[in-house]
Amino acid sequence: MEPIEYENASEEVRALYDEIKAARGVPDVNNIWKYLAHHPATARDVWEGLKQVMGPGELAPEVKELIYVAVSIANRCEYCVNTHSTAALKKGATPGMLNEMLAIVGMASKTNALAVGYQVPLDK
Amino acid sequence: MEPIEYENASEEVRALYDEIKAARGVPDVNNIWKYLAHHPATARDVWEGLKQVMGPGELAPEVKELIYVAVSIANRCEYCVNTHSTAALKKGATPGMLNEMLAIVGMASKTNALAVGYQVPLDK
Amino acid sequence: MEPIEYENASEEVRALYDEIKAARGVPDVNNIWKYLAHHPATARDVWEGLKQVMGPGELAPEVKELIYVAVSIANRCEYCVNTHSTAALKKGATPGMLNEMLAIVGMASKTNALAVGYQVPLDK
Amino acid sequence: MEPIEYENASEEVRALYDEIKAARGVPDVNNIWKYLAHHPATARDVWEGLKQVMGPGELAPEVKELIYVAVSIANRCEYCVNTHSTAALKKGATPGMLNEMLAIVGMASKTNALAVGYQVPLDK
Amino acid sequence: MEPIEYENASEEVRALYDEIKAARGVPDVNNIWKYLAHHPATARDVWEGLKQVMGPGELAPEVKELIYVAVSIANRCEYCVNTHSTAALKKGATPGMLNEMLAIVGMASKTNALAVGYQVPLDK
Amino acid sequence: MEPIEYENASEEVRALYDEIKAARGVPDVNNIWKYLAHHPATARDVWEGLKQVMGPGELAPEVKELIYVAVSIANRCEYCVNTHSTAALKKGATPGMLNEMLAIVGMASKTNALAVGYQVPLDK
Repeated sequence: MEPIEYENASEEVRALYDEIKAARGVPDVNNIWKYLAHHPATARDVWEGLKQVMGPGELAPEVKELIYVAVSIANRCEYCVNTHSTAALKKGATPGMLNEMLAIVGMASKTNALAVGYQVPLDK
Repeated sequence: MEPIEYENASEEVRALYDEIKAARGVPDVNNIWKYLAHHPATARDVWEGLKQVMGPGELAPEVKELIYVAVSIANRCEYCVNTHSTAALKKGATPGMLNEMLAIVGMASKTNALAVGYQVPLDK
Repeated sequence: MEPIEYENASEEVRALYDEIKAARGVPDVNNIWKYLAHHPATARDVWEGLKQVMGPGELAPEVKELIYVAVSIANRCEYCVNTHSTAALKKGATPGMLNEMLAIVGMASKTNALAVGYQVPLDK
Repeated sequence: MEPIEYENASEEVRALYDEIKAARGVPDVNNIWKYLAHHPATARDVWEGLKQVMGPGELAPEVKELIYVAVSIANRCEYCVNTHSTAALKKGATPGMLNEMLAIVGMASKTNALAVGYQVPLDK
Repeated sequence: MEPIEYENASEEVRALYDEIKAARGVPDVNNIWKYLAHHPATARDVWEGLKQVMGPGELAPEVKELIYVAVSIANRCEYCVNTHSTAALKKGATPGMLNEMLAIVGMASKTNALAVGYQVPLDK
Repeated sequence: MEPIEYENASEEVRALYDEIKAARGVPDVNNIWKYLAHHPATARDVWEGLKQVMGPGELAPEVKELIYVAVSIANRCEYCVNTHSTAALKKGATPGMLNEMLAIVGMASKTNALAVGYQVPLDK
């Protein structure tokens, strides 16, 4: 499937692109939207979900992005690691925080594997 | 393999158990240590790594634990999700933060899969 | 390891290539076969398995390919997502079906993560 | 976190439970909802998403559930494999279809691993 | 789906059970076979595959089992970790080898995550 | 994040690079180290861990590398599959061993998925 650019997009998709561009102050939407545009319902659903999940809450915005990157690493999504690392830095994460997050991802991946390998039962 | 209790542990392992109990102020170590004890070098290495990675840094302790849980969910380690969720709450994470973290893990897992499925290329 | 082209292949591998080309009506086999050719037993085993699993059954051929793609996304095999998406369309899947399948993969990945994160016990 | 039963649920969550029970014609909601209820926004979001994704489309309802199960297997969510296998049978999937789907999941997992292991490049 | 015991199995499945019991010198087959029996073609295919892959080759039998366990840990199959750990010990792996294998799985899981997280490009 | 070359590295990182180059007899370190260098504590920790885990033990060096590759395939780390396949061959693994390991990874991935899909309970 090919990416759908603004000029070839339906009214519904253009409205979404406009909304994303306005919310983020960017001249064009990221590639992910140009592919999700093949299924406008999914594209809209992802956008509404992201706004809610990544919006104001008890966790700071940069922390939310760091968690997003950590999960994307564990889930092996190169595209997502790339875009959300950039987003984390934009939202105020420091390189130091990014490195610490990566160290945690490495450490957790190790102990996750060891706990499964040794078949450790839950603590009471 | 069976868990190695204090009374059956080697000197080396007992020293580690004592160190962990003292550092955490707990009467007994968690199950994971009683299994890692089968390979003292790994047990020691995990403990040294955890102290360094989860110790003071730019990220708050409860944030570090939330990232640990998020990765453990993505890596499907039930034991690790269980113990590090408890640790997160102990270190100051609120239930609200835990729920927000879980919402991010869900959202990221969805977009991770979609980005891979649509074979989205990196943005320039 | 380098791909093994027809001209450099053993008799056994050539026979397999010929069989695949005839069955699929294609002038050359896909890359995967040129790598599996390093272990003829595995190459043969995969081909026999594919014929049986993807052959006539209770599920329609395009549905089988959609399931194959869905699993390949979840298992993060870019090559497999690519080839089996193409195969699905060839066997009669519509772009609409592909988009619906992708939406399910996204949704399932989200609820899979949430069920693990909340440590939901089995329903009675 | 403990499951939230109807009698202890907020108005918002009760309304959701009622909606799910009515839509599915069941006397009680599944465990997953009683845990998602800790974050009503996520619970609502998952319900709306499921209705849309699993509702009428180009793919038959039982096919949608089979894809859901296949992804849940690949993503290692025991709870999800369990509930969606049941749902698939309820919606008309035959045991034969379930077995064929499982054979595809096994086959795809094997070739996914082999393609990654042999580092097979995309076909032109 | 329920396990299919010998007394309720078809001729075809009984023949397979008999073959496995004879080859392994055990009074009953493991649970996995009693579930695969729902799809005799898959059960047969798995048995033939196992015989070939785990049979004599350049790698020692206990090494083959250790690799099997390592992959099963990474793939999060509790059942498989359990049965193949036992098989490894039976075939001559020492507890020391098992512990070393586990240490490698932990280490690899850590560096796997770090390489993905830092988006490390292939070396030339 | 960009790779950190020797000329731009801190004293601490240069010492690590020198140590790795000497131990391996190579003119330059692999890319992974140039990225880990952003967090010297992690880089050092990985190096010490690798030396211990991959050093002399009950498993032969080439077997250790084969297990490393197998796990890296299951964990979907293209970079790691690439470098550790090369390392395995350097340490004495034959192409035949590599192919056998890959066949095991494929087979295990298939049965791992089937065991999860059929929800097989542990054998007594």
